[in-house]
Amino acid sequence: MPIIKPRVLKGFRDFLPDAEITRSSLVKKLEQVFSLFGFVPIDTPVLEYADILLGKGGGETDKQVYRFLDHGDRDIAMRFDLTVPFARFMAEHVEELYLPFRRYHIAKVWRGENTQRGRYREFMQCDFDIVGTDSSSADADILLTAAKAMIVLDVGEFSLRINHRALFNRFLARIGALDKSAEILRTVDKLEKIGFENTLEKLSKLVGLELAADILSFIKKEDSFEATLEKMISFCNKNDVYAQSAKSRLLEIMECVAATGFDNRIVLDPSITRGLDYYTGMVVETSLGALPEIGSVCSGGRYDELASLYTERKMPGVGASIGLDRLIAALETIGKINDSVISTQVLIMNQEKGNAESIAISELHALAAHLRDAGFSCEVFPEEKKTLAQYTYAERKHIPLALFANSAKGPYNLRILAQRKNIECLDFDSLCESIRSSLNVKT
Amino acid sequence: MPIIKPRVLKGFRDFLPDAEITRSSLVKKLEQVFSLFGFVPIDTPVLEYADILLGKGGGETDKQVYRFLDHGDRDIAMRFDLTVPFARFMAEHVEELYLPFRRYHIAKVWRGENTQRGRYREFMQCDFDIVGTDSSSADADILLTAAKAMIVLDVGEFSLRINHRALFNRFLARIGALDKSAEILRTVDKLEKIGFENTLEKLSKLVGLELAADILSFIKKEDSFEATLEKMISFCNKNDVYAQSAKSRLLEIMECVAATGFDNRIVLDPSITRGLDYYTGMVVETSLGALPEIGSVCSGGRYDELASLYTERKMPGVGASIGLDRLIAALETIGKINDSVISTQVLIMNQEKGNAESIAISELHALAAHLRDAGFSCEVFPEEKKTLAQYTYAERKHIPLALFANSAKGPYNLRILAQRKNIECLDFDSLCESIRSSLNVKT
Repeated sequence: MPIIKPRVLKGFRDFLPDAEITRSSLVKKLEQVFSLFGFVPIDTPVLEYADILLGKGGGETDKQVYRFLDHGDRDIAMRFDLTVPFARFMAEHVEELYLPFRRYHIAKVWRGENTQRGRYREFMQCDFDIVGTDSSSADADILLTAAKAMIVLDVGEFSLRINHRALFNRFLARIGALDKSAEILRTVDKLEKIGFENTLEKLSKLVGLELAADILSFIKKEDSFEATLEKMISFCNKNDVYAQSAKSRLLEIMECVAATGFDNRIVLDPSITRGLDYYTGMVVETSLGALPEIGSVCSGGRYDELASLYTERKMPGVGASIGLDRLIAALETIGKINDSVISTQVLIMNQEKGNAESIAISELHALAAHLRDAGFSCEVFPEEKKTLAQYTYAERKHIPLALFANSAKGPYNLRILAQRKNIECLDFDSLCESIRSSLNVKT
Repeated sequence: MPIIKPRVLKGFRDFLPDAEITRSSLVKKLEQVFSLFGFVPIDTPVLEYADILLGKGGGETDKQVYRFLDHGDRDIAMRFDLTVPFARFMAEHVEELYLPFRRYHIAKVWRGENTQRGRYREFMQCDFDIVGTDSSSADADILLTAAKAMIVLDVGEFSLRINHRALFNRFLARIGALDKSAEILRTVDKLEKIGFENTLEKLSKLVGLELAADILSFIKKEDSFEATLEKMISFCNKNDVYAQSAKSRLLEIMECVAATGFDNRIVLDPSITRGLDYYTGMVVETSLGALPEIGSVCSGGRYDELASLYTERKMPGVGASIGLDRLIAALETIGKINDSVISTQVLIMNQEKGNAESIAISELHALAAHLRDAGFSCEVFPEEKKTLAQYTYAERKHIPLALFANSAKGPYNLRILAQRKNIECLDFDSLCESIRSSLNVKT
């Protein structure tokens, strides 16, 4: 039979062990952070009815969705984000749950995007939301969780750039451009990508040069949170109650954040708008100090209605999403990914017969079982091969220690492979001690 | 706009927090076991070229596969198991890896199966394999890993029922029925489901009554591993080298397993064949003592050629797969799933204003940050609500402790909700101490 050439689809990737260990260790750290803040995990199906995922719409997103008929001729699709399934989930299960509901969901999504921009068609999203409350305390929790996640992931310097949608809208209302807010928001959202000149030109076409200049002046950040906030308020009508209420909200959020000492991570940035109409309150993007050009690694905001497509029940909430693949790429770029992850800790050498020290392989398995009971990960090399071949295997797999045994009960010879150093251990306890201390030494 | 009824596809499920916490805690335990045995994780795309997943075939599996054309008119499909993608993965990446390669993969797969049999169309598989070695040590490692997984998952009594494919085939060769081995294996594989009478009838149609009786006699288990093995050998031709070699292999495997004290978990069961042609050596199924009727929760075996569809390179290996959903269902049935999982440990109460003890919510956030730094998961209730409403929330979410504070620095009043007992704590250290001891007490 002819061979089928092994290959993956464009925009899709295999994760080899080192990459998968890296990804899964980041996921575990994020899960710990979410858990510290009281978020609980959920999961939803990868496949859903197309009308659930796409509503009645026919927009830009639709073209990217993997959609097809199943064996029962149902019109189905693969999820393209975690927000829409979450909205459906809340509408369906709200009676079985409790509000406010804090959930996280770390899972793959699929979009048939143009891969030329370095995008993947299968990637992992990591969403966390608090639904069923309109309080500033929840807004603050999302910021605090995002900040804690960045610290635990060891991204170095970062800042959470926040804004409030209402301030922008009230300013647009004052200059009479509220009817064009969607286009203006989308244009402003691309400021960093397309530059000041291009943005001015695009805005001019929308509202004329004078108002375009006003808008660009409005979205300029001042020296401090307070100064920026005052500037923004001054661009709105005096006594605009919506603007005043947005100001109070931002101050409340900052008070909570400041109480935890994280306020130095927050910047009020009027240029942050998060394009989507969906958001109605605070919005946030996260920039890395070492790599501002990669854009936001954690973004979100407050919305009034999560699930209005599926229920008449109001579900206000606030949440954010971490782009895990982008973040991993960033951590690799700034050298924060340790590429020599340890898999197995101890390789139990299976010496060639004829060697005077050779022992039965069942003895090696007995030794392995003792080591596992002591909490060490280990494996018996399954074939009698030359020592060098087994060392090479250990090196390729990043196994730091090789163990030679004369019997399951010892004596043992433990080799720290990177140092080419051997340690004699007379009994099992001293072997465990030597393994422990060897693993703690950076090699 | 009319509401779209929120619903999931037949055969698909949402995982609410309690179920998802249960599943993810079992997955974490399995990951720990795999890691102890030196298995490393990989991941592969959910979507692959249809010819990669289905070969040239058009069998039973194909009808169940979710297959469609993507936007570029590529014929693609969702993976229906983790073995086929692993074979493609090994053929593609063997030069970047090292052999023997021990991998695990825990991920969802999709099959458009008939849901009437209580099957799901989206379910999680959990595969572990050692590829690139033909050694009995690797066979033993798969059994040991499976046994350790069952113990760590706390399934109660279980047995690994093993067999060797060659013994069955050599017996069939002797009775002249080797050309019908595939049908015979499939029939015998269903013995427990369809019963002795039906099996005899089906076998009779294939090979006649006398040989059918022979086959059923061959697959009967004797009182001990050794007695069963001798019986099986006696059914083959004397001096059949293949049968003798299979016998030696089983004894070698048992020697390794016995050295670790797990031999009491192993049963030689000639009726275990694992239907598939794919297997060539040892095969294994795992039965639970408390629930034998649910069938095997961990099955696998040795194969000669993992990736022959995609490469001419020989890749012998051995592996097994845990049916996580079936296992969870089993654990629920035998009461081994604790349905009151703890999510958040401490709910920081947000008391109504007007209450003399009410403090600023920012103080509560400061307190939350201190508790998280001390390693406790906690959340500030985001709205001022009646104490009873907040207690109800805690109860629904299985939060065991409610904390009332007069300031971030204390004093505090910690309530153990299940016991309706309050503990006064004057400072933060004594608060942490009280939380720790309360969480250790079973409530």
